[in-house]
Amino acid sequence: MADEFGSRFAAPIFERVAIIGVGLIGSSLARVIRRVNAAGKISLADYSSDVLKRAETLGLGDTYHLSAALAVNGADAVIFCVPVGVNGEIAREIGGHLEPGVIVSDVGSVKVAVIDAIGPHLPREAHFVPAHPVAGTEQSGPDAGFAALFANRWCILTPPEGTCVEAVAKISRLWGSFGANVEIMTASHHDLVLAITSHVPHLIAYNIVGTAADLEEVTRTEVIKYSAGGFRDFTRIAASDPTMWRDVFLYNREAVLEMLGRFSEDLTALQRMIRRGDGDGLFNLFTRTRAIRTGIVSLGQETTAPDFGRRAGGR
Amino acid sequence: MADEFGSRFAAPIFERVAIIGVGLIGSSLARVIRRVNAAGKISLADYSSDVLKRAETLGLGDTYHLSAALAVNGADAVIFCVPVGVNGEIAREIGGHLEPGVIVSDVGSVKVAVIDAIGPHLPREAHFVPAHPVAGTEQSGPDAGFAALFANRWCILTPPEGTCVEAVAKISRLWGSFGANVEIMTASHHDLVLAITSHVPHLIAYNIVGTAADLEEVTRTEVIKYSAGGFRDFTRIAASDPTMWRDVFLYNREAVLEMLGRFSEDLTALQRMIRRGDGDGLFNLFTRTRAIRTGIVSLGQETTAPDFGRRAGGR
Repeated sequence: MADEFGSRFAAPIFERVAIIGVGLIGSSLARVIRRVNAAGKISLADYSSDVLKRAETLGLGDTYHLSAALAVNGADAVIFCVPVGVNGEIAREIGGHLEPGVIVSDVGSVKVAVIDAIGPHLPREAHFVPAHPVAGTEQSGPDAGFAALFANRWCILTPPEGTCVEAVAKISRLWGSFGANVEIMTASHHDLVLAITSHVPHLIAYNIVGTAADLEEVTRTEVIKYSAGGFRDFTRIAASDPTMWRDVFLYNREAVLEMLGRFSEDLTALQRMIRRGDGDGLFNLFTRTRAIRTGIVSLGQETTAPDFGRRAGGR
Repeated sequence: MADEFGSRFAAPIFERVAIIGVGLIGSSLARVIRRVNAAGKISLADYSSDVLKRAETLGLGDTYHLSAALAVNGADAVIFCVPVGVNGEIAREIGGHLEPGVIVSDVGSVKVAVIDAIGPHLPREAHFVPAHPVAGTEQSGPDAGFAALFANRWCILTPPEGTCVEAVAKISRLWGSFGANVEIMTASHHDLVLAITSHVPHLIAYNIVGTAADLEEVTRTEVIKYSAGGFRDFTRIAASDPTMWRDVFLYNREAVLEMLGRFSEDLTALQRMIRRGDGDGLFNLFTRTRAIRTGIVSLGQETTAPDFGRRAGGR
């Protein structure tokens, strides 16, 4: 059966997938794996019993575990879906419990640090294929997930040199079946690309929302009331999960600081244009930036509706 | 008849409204004025004959003029809907042609500079009620407008001291009939509030899109492909009209530079937290910013759907 997720597998490609962490991404994975029949069984682990109970109520998996070490029992694929900073600890915990030949993967927004954290704890016969689906919403938790989250989004694989080709092909096939487009690059290039397309945008969104909240001359009520002038677009990503994002900045520090440095330099130049009344300079920049938007829309990574289609049907 | 625009007037409140500039805002105004029967006749003026022809094809007005001075003939209300920087020139052009007792208003995103530019050219018997509807999309031109643009948005009036109370009440009633919520404040406070809720957000959006476009290590294709990680939210407002925004920064220079200074200070502090690995500091900021989002959503200035509802129906 073909649908928006590509094709449903006649036979599962994994016998049992263990998903460690049942938040927005982990719960979306569980849903879509079942939808496309990618695994015979799904084991879910989360350190929070509330999250685990909620996952069980939603029927997201076959077995539910507070212990990651128990969840990986019998699994031929294990996917870490936790904040970047806890991958190392979990890898240490499960390392001795993994099945021979298991494929280990993750969904972290940072890749060099995650490879360094997980790699050393895996047994030699495990295959590690780091992955990062570039998809998400500002919401968190098992209820926030949905099967179509990865459809028409990119999933970047960053296998270290020498990774088993069959394992990479299998993870690639898995993400392809979710409707994602798979790309392969080095972990360090990934971290640079994501610093500018995701990490620094989040950082400056968090920053301006913080700046606005701290003003004395303008009240918080005024900020909220008149947010339709542009500010509210920033608040969406500044409402993203604080733990996940704290870890992104701590673990992709070098690339983020590098890209942030360039952003700040450019902002200083822009500030000077305003101070000097350089209308032509401003106009030229504002014209150039429109082209990027056009590219994103035409590549299907954005809606063509004005205002994100917020007023869909209301016109 | 009551609908999303409030009530339709049994009798028009103006005999003839002249709208100077038929872009996104001017054309939306023409549409909603007709929809709620706020004026007996609508005169449209634009310096571009292409825009004017398009407006005529769309049937947006009753008369169409390349000359603003001719458009105001017989009008008891005149609304400037042009980029902030050209208001003065147009005011000089039409000043001698205004009818006695006419109410003049505008829709500019900057108020102190616009009052200074328009005021001196108006005859003593004209009433000037500056206005700013906090609404818009990233699209431009007469085709982009729609009657519901102002519904459930704020419209800020900044009448200078001594402005005729009846004129303010009439403009207030006009915007109310479009479904907008009217607020009154001083022009200088308006310029400060909008600097943080609209002008600086646009500036940093333009800036990061510019930074991303200029990178050598990350290709433009990569920026576009992986934009779903956060970057694409910024591109929407960085696709806004370049002429309009150039003028906003040139004419609200002081307030923008003041707010930009605070944003930069805060960003430097955030940069230091990352460099020093201050996870608690990052976590605290990222938690605080969620509250602002909640306020905006609960005040009806934003959709509750995750991801702006981009995937509405696709879940």
